[in-house]
Amino acid sequence: MTPPASRDDCAALDSADPLAALRDAFELPEGVIYLDGNSLGPLPRATRAKVLQAMEHEWGRGLITSWNDAGWIDMPRRIGGKIARLIGAQADEVIAVDSTSINLFKLLAGALALRAQRRVIVSEAGNFPTDLYIAQGLASLLGAGHELRLVERERIADAIDEHTAVVMLTQVDYRSGSCLDLAAVTALAHRAGALMLWDLAHSAGALAVDLNGAKADLAVGCGYKYLNGGPGAPAFAYVARALQEDFHQPLSGWLGHASPFAFESGYRPAPGIARLQCGTAPVLSMAALESGVDTLLLAEATGGLPALRQKSLRLGDLFIERVAARCADHPLRLITPRAHEQRGSQVSYAIGDGQMGYAVIQALIARGVIGDFRAPDILRFGLAPAYLRATDVWDAVEHLGQVLDGGEWREARFMSRKAVT
Amino acid sequence: MTPPASRDDCAALDSADPLAALRDAFELPEGVIYLDGNSLGPLPRATRAKVLQAMEHEWGRGLITSWNDAGWIDMPRRIGGKIARLIGAQADEVIAVDSTSINLFKLLAGALALRAQRRVIVSEAGNFPTDLYIAQGLASLLGAGHELRLVERERIADAIDEHTAVVMLTQVDYRSGSCLDLAAVTALAHRAGALMLWDLAHSAGALAVDLNGAKADLAVGCGYKYLNGGPGAPAFAYVARALQEDFHQPLSGWLGHASPFAFESGYRPAPGIARLQCGTAPVLSMAALESGVDTLLLAEATGGLPALRQKSLRLGDLFIERVAARCADHPLRLITPRAHEQRGSQVSYAIGDGQMGYAVIQALIARGVIGDFRAPDILRFGLAPAYLRATDVWDAVEHLGQVLDGGEWREARFMSRKAVT
Repeated sequence: MTPPASRDDCAALDSADPLAALRDAFELPEGVIYLDGNSLGPLPRATRAKVLQAMEHEWGRGLITSWNDAGWIDMPRRIGGKIARLIGAQADEVIAVDSTSINLFKLLAGALALRAQRRVIVSEAGNFPTDLYIAQGLASLLGAGHELRLVERERIADAIDEHTAVVMLTQVDYRSGSCLDLAAVTALAHRAGALMLWDLAHSAGALAVDLNGAKADLAVGCGYKYLNGGPGAPAFAYVARALQEDFHQPLSGWLGHASPFAFESGYRPAPGIARLQCGTAPVLSMAALESGVDTLLLAEATGGLPALRQKSLRLGDLFIERVAARCADHPLRLITPRAHEQRGSQVSYAIGDGQMGYAVIQALIARGVIGDFRAPDILRFGLAPAYLRATDVWDAVEHLGQVLDGGEWREARFMSRKAVT
Repeated sequence: MTPPASRDDCAALDSADPLAALRDAFELPEGVIYLDGNSLGPLPRATRAKVLQAMEHEWGRGLITSWNDAGWIDMPRRIGGKIARLIGAQADEVIAVDSTSINLFKLLAGALALRAQRRVIVSEAGNFPTDLYIAQGLASLLGAGHELRLVERERIADAIDEHTAVVMLTQVDYRSGSCLDLAAVTALAHRAGALMLWDLAHSAGALAVDLNGAKADLAVGCGYKYLNGGPGAPAFAYVARALQEDFHQPLSGWLGHASPFAFESGYRPAPGIARLQCGTAPVLSMAALESGVDTLLLAEATGGLPALRQKSLRLGDLFIERVAARCADHPLRLITPRAHEQRGSQVSYAIGDGQMGYAVIQALIARGVIGDFRAPDILRFGLAPAYLRATDVWDAVEHLGQVLDGGEWREARFMSRKAVT
C-alpha cells in the first residue's frame, strides 16, 4: 500500500482505521505527539480507577485479607496469562514478575543448568546492555569456564556450536529497530542443541509475536513499553511448557515454593511457571500493569495483534517516506530496515553527530514531539499502533523538518544532558 | 511502668501519648483493630495523593521526561536515604530496590565473594523460609562446597567458625517475636572473621535499630510491614560504607552500572550503594513506599524511634498482662519473651492445636480484630506503635476472651483456609 501523499489522506486513513477507538483508551496530553512508547507507554484511562481500587479499597479497607479476597496472590499468574495472549504462548507459560534484568538471570541460570555440559551463552555485541551485563554477572559468578560470547549479528549462526548452552537475543534492536526472525533463529539454536532465550522488550504488544509457533524455549519482556504498564512496571518471563518440570532457577524465594504458606525450611519448587516467582510482587504497580495489558487486549475485538502490526508497519512506511520527502536536505541516515519482516515498531536515523542528534530531540520535545536520543548519534521514533495516527506521523515529520530547516536545534544543543530510560 | 488496670486507664494513657497524632496519618477502617501491621502496614493518608501525583501528573502528563524531571531515576537512593534514618545507617549505605528475597541473594553472593576462602553461610533453622530458600538456591548454584549450615538459635555461637563466610539472621523471629541483640551477634560473627547479614523485616520501623552502632556489615528489610509502603512494596538493602568499594553482586543489571545511559557493552559497577540496583524500579509502588517512610519519619518530631520502641513495648506489656488476666482459663501459651531486650514488636501465643488457632483468628477477624495465624499453632499479634492505642489492645484482648469463652471459634474452624502473607 502506498503511503498517503497529503495530510488529508492521512486524516482519511485515520477515520477508516478499525483501531482508531483504541486511542481513546489512553490519556495523551494535549498537544503532544508521543513517539516514545517504546521506552515508556502512556497512561491508559482505565488505570487510574484500577490503581485507586487496589490502593483505597483493597489495601486501605481490605488490608491483609486482600491477599486472598482481592486475588493479589494470583496476580503474577493471572497477568502472565493475559500477556501470553500477546506473545503466542499458553496461559500457564508466562508469569508477570520482577524486572526484565532479574528474569534474564533466572532464565539464563536455568538454561545453563539444563545444558550442564555446555558453558557458553551466545549473544550479539549490540544487544541491550542489561542483557549483556546480567549474562556477564552470571558467568562470572559461576566461573569454571562459563562465558558470554559476543558476536556481530551476521556472525551469530557461526557462533552457535556444541559448546553453546543458550542463545540470548533481543528480537527488536533498541537502536535500529531491526527485527530478527523468531522461528529461524530459534531453529538455528536448536540445530546445535542449544536453548533459545528471547528478549521481547521491544516486541511484546507491538509485533505479532508467536513464541509457540517459533518453538522458543525461554523469553523475557518488559511491562512498561508497549504493554503500557507504567514506569518501571514489573516484567514477564516465559518458559515453554515442555521445559517447566525440569527448570530450576536460583532466585528461589518463598513465593516460588510449592507450598509457600507451609513455611517449610527446605525449598521445593512450585509446579510449572509459578516457580519463576521469588519475593512478593509490588501490587500497585502490578495493578497498573494489568490495566495496561487489558487495554491492549481491547484490540482483540478489531483484529488483534495482526491488525496492530499492520498499522505499525503502515505508520513506519509513512514516516520513512515523509522524511525522505520533507528532510532530504539534512544529514539523516535511515538505520531501520525498510523491509517489513526486518523491522520492529520504531524508525531510527543516524544524524550528523551526537551533539546534533541530542539537540534535535530536545528541540522536538520543546515542540511537543517526544522521541528520544540514543548514543552515539541516533534519533529514535517509536510508533505504537495502539494510539498513534497517520496524522501524528505526518505532523511529527513536519516538525522535524522545521527544526532542521530553521536551525532551531542549534539553540537546544546547550540544554543539559540528562539520563532517560 | 505497670500496665494500666482498666480501660479508662488505657484511655488516659492514649490521651497523654506524644505519638497519638501519628495515628491520624493513617487510614484505618472504622471498627477495625489492626494487629497485622507486621505483615502488611495500613494505608497512610498521604499516600493517595503521592501515588496519584506519580500516576496522573508525572506519568500521565510528564511521560518519559519524568525520569529526570520528577526524579524517578533517583528514587532508589532517595528513599534508601530516608530508610537509613530508621535503621541507624548513613544515607549512602541504603537503597530501596527489588524484593527482600532478591536483595538477600545479592548480599549473600557479595559476602561469599568477599570471603572467597570460606564456603559456609550460617543461619538458624527457624529463620524465615525465604531467607533459607535463597541461601539454598545460591549455595546450590555455586556448588564447590558452598553450604547453608542451619542450627538452632542457642547453637549459633558454636556454629560460627573459620569456614563461615557470612552469618545471616533475622533480628526478630516472625513467629515468636523474639529479638536478637544486633551488636552482640555481629561481634560473634566478626570474632570468627565472618561477615554479618541482618534481615530487618520485622524490625525496621518498629525497633530502634542501629546498624552502624552494631558494626553490621550487611542488611535487608521489607517495605510493606512497619514501613507501611503498601502491598509488595519494594524492599531495601544496606551495605556498610567500608565494604562498598569491594562489594560485587551478580545481579548486575544496567541501573547498577557506573554509566547506565552510555550503553556500554561491559559492566562497570556504579560507585557505592548504587551498584545494588539491577533493573528499573516500579515507580508507583516506590511512590507509595516513600510516602510510608515519610509518614513514619513524622515521629522524629516526637521522640522518633526510641519513643516508638517504648510505646511498642508498653503495648506488648499490656497485651501480655491482659491475656494473663482475661484469658487464664484457656490454653494460650505465651511464646514471646517478656524481657524487653528480647522482644520485637509483636506478641505471639501457641494455642491448643493448629485447627483451633486458625479458627480463633478467623473468629477475631469476623469481629474486626485482625491478627494472623502461623503454622503450626501460633496466634500472632503485631503491635505497630505508630497507630495503635492502649485502648485497642485492651479491646482486642477482650474480644479474644469472648471468642474463647463462648466457643465462637468452633464455628469459624470450618471456614476455608487460605494463604496470607
